[in-house]
Amino acid sequence: MIYADNAATTKMSKAAIDVMCTLMNSCWGNPSSLYTHGQKAKEVLEKAREEVASVIGAGAREIIFTSGGSEADNQAILSAAAIGKRKGKLHIVSTAFEHHAVLHTLEKFKKEGFEVTLVDVHEDGLVRPEEVEKAIREDTCLVSVMYANNEIGTIQPIRQIGEICRRAKVLFHVDAVQAVGHIPVNVEDDNIDMLSASAHKFHGPKGVGFLYMKKGIPVKNLIEGGAQERGRRAGTENVPGIAAMAEALKEAVRDLDKNAALISAKRDRLIAGLKEIPHSAVNGDEEHRLPGNVNFCFEGIEGESLLLLLDDKGICASSGSACTSGSLDPSHVLLAIGRVHDVAHGSLRLSINEEITDEEVEYVIKSVKEVVEYLRGFSPIWRDLVNGKKEFIL
Amino acid sequence: MIYADNAATTKMSKAAIDVMCTLMNSCWGNPSSLYTHGQKAKEVLEKAREEVASVIGAGAREIIFTSGGSEADNQAILSAAAIGKRKGKLHIVSTAFEHHAVLHTLEKFKKEGFEVTLVDVHEDGLVRPEEVEKAIREDTCLVSVMYANNEIGTIQPIRQIGEICRRAKVLFHVDAVQAVGHIPVNVEDDNIDMLSASAHKFHGPKGVGFLYMKKGIPVKNLIEGGAQERGRRAGTENVPGIAAMAEALKEAVRDLDKNAALISAKRDRLIAGLKEIPHSAVNGDEEHRLPGNVNFCFEGIEGESLLLLLDDKGICASSGSACTSGSLDPSHVLLAIGRVHDVAHGSLRLSINEEITDEEVEYVIKSVKEVVEYLRGFSPIWRDLVNGKKEFIL
Repeated sequence: MIYADNAATTKMSKAAIDVMCTLMNSCWGNPSSLYTHGQKAKEVLEKAREEVASVIGAGAREIIFTSGGSEADNQAILSAAAIGKRKGKLHIVSTAFEHHAVLHTLEKFKKEGFEVTLVDVHEDGLVRPEEVEKAIREDTCLVSVMYANNEIGTIQPIRQIGEICRRAKVLFHVDAVQAVGHIPVNVEDDNIDMLSASAHKFHGPKGVGFLYMKKGIPVKNLIEGGAQERGRRAGTENVPGIAAMAEALKEAVRDLDKNAALISAKRDRLIAGLKEIPHSAVNGDEEHRLPGNVNFCFEGIEGESLLLLLDDKGICASSGSACTSGSLDPSHVLLAIGRVHDVAHGSLRLSINEEITDEEVEYVIKSVKEVVEYLRGFSPIWRDLVNGKKEFIL
Repeated sequence: MIYADNAATTKMSKAAIDVMCTLMNSCWGNPSSLYTHGQKAKEVLEKAREEVASVIGAGAREIIFTSGGSEADNQAILSAAAIGKRKGKLHIVSTAFEHHAVLHTLEKFKKEGFEVTLVDVHEDGLVRPEEVEKAIREDTCLVSVMYANNEIGTIQPIRQIGEICRRAKVLFHVDAVQAVGHIPVNVEDDNIDMLSASAHKFHGPKGVGFLYMKKGIPVKNLIEGGAQERGRRAGTENVPGIAAMAEALKEAVRDLDKNAALISAKRDRLIAGLKEIPHSAVNGDEEHRLPGNVNFCFEGIEGESLLLLLDDKGICASSGSACTSGSLDPSHVLLAIGRVHDVAHGSLRLSINEEITDEEVEYVIKSVKEVVEYLRGFSPIWRDLVNGKKEFIL
């Protein structure tokens, strides 16, 4: 199996699995308990908090452990909205290609009287800081922009947007689920007030993530109940999972630059190889791009059939976000960068890590080429394109 | 170490750890992915859903996997409140000794215009169905009563309360976090519409739980985002954790009756032994009680000191809920059953499982006796009681 869907989820690292299995056996006490066995769990929890915080340049007390990136996104927006409500600021700025954990949460707040401005994403998959600046109003309580897009992998000018938010005194939330553990992220340097991350995107366990909330920002609970996480997130802490996340994150950033260079080279070879397919195009800027992300549109085919045939060849890939698979709508991300429906339907995302070999890269290129050609062979849209009944876009 | 705090958390069973460690290595795909590796994870997920559902007499589609009991409680109440709002029914009935995941969520909805009636819990730690019935009004949208109390272990007359709710056509939510895996729970027989449970309370992993929502009840998302859990709970599913939960639950109910009888006998010996301590009293009814729960008040001592000294003797126990440890307020549960502040402060909860030996039971009794006597030796309250400056209550 060639796994090229690391943006959907990653395999846990051996070290993270070891931490998890060890702690499930030895450190299963409730960290809120007074006795030694509980306090030992508390120590492990707080050590993990310091480690996670240190990776992103935060203080330990600024980290709230959650069940994942979606929960963190929800809580960040909920907290900002609560502040907005108190101040009579009911306007939120975000972008058209955010993850649904952000977009759907914003929809919810629209029903509660908030106004949402989604700034455009350009054809290159990048948000323009000046357009964010223009969208900010007197009554804006929050700007939420993702660090790197989960489908097309484009890395946003977060630092500049953060500067704008600081100047405008508007809270800045960053969904960094695809970025943390893959590219350098530092909440201080990047002027970030709130940041969401998810362990299973950087070889940690599923069901664990964290929310960074800059000191001084009042946090609103999404999950009410016990006094865990200093009263900011109820529920017994998943200590083994949290410690495994910290382990995976430390590992991911240890050789970040070296790995990023290695992965980028393979990504670039994949992009170059797939570009040879006629009437294809890379989605999103090639430079400001996650090291492991390759995203293409091929005219005249259906992404879903492409994936199933690649699966037959032992290649795990996706057409977009795993979170929306099963939906027949084309990716909102591809539509946001201006792809028309027909073209957006024929998309392919490969998200690789350092483990893919050069031989596997060549095999993937060869396989995609074959499958695209095969599918075009009986595609009515392709026939129309070739016959001139429809016009080629790519 | 003698672990007598299973109501706070349990050690994962060997089988559950095995499932988790195996799946983290072999079945880590994203269940929303189309390729075989993802679909294999989906199968494991759906098998776990069927297993969990079957244990509580539900249908698989009625189970929503969550990050734990607190999240499930929050989502159940949120869903019922949304229905109430639509129908103009803004009244909720609950009890004074619910878990904070329920009580704090109700507080939140009070701020949003809901009225909450908390029915009394009697001295025996039991809610009276007829009092619940009396509290239900024309505009009641929800009754929420816990199955078994997390501190004093009293088992509520859920079936009768459920019947009342059915007759009154009011939704019935049951926080069954302490009950599932410990006593028989069947949502059909018990007339339950919504039920919350948590894996780490029945030897499953932390960070995993589930919400049962009876077919036909519109579910409101607490976590917005991807289309996971049929659009009812966003976030990549924690497949290894969920499968480990199902494994632990199957195991827990396999020998439920046999184990319950075994544990009850040890519980009764603990209760009999601790009753020999002068000016002590069991909290809550002795008959309608979880098999593993022992809860006492001892006059003239501080629960916290008691715990620390028991820890020195290798015994893990608690004074009440782990979720509120660190707080100096006495337990809201003990106050709800009529214990005065001074007495409520001197409480001890032992929650055992089948692994405790008879020798350990005797050691616990001996240790508690010693520690209580020791603490009373320099307690000013105890001196006042003995000197007649204060009156004994117990």
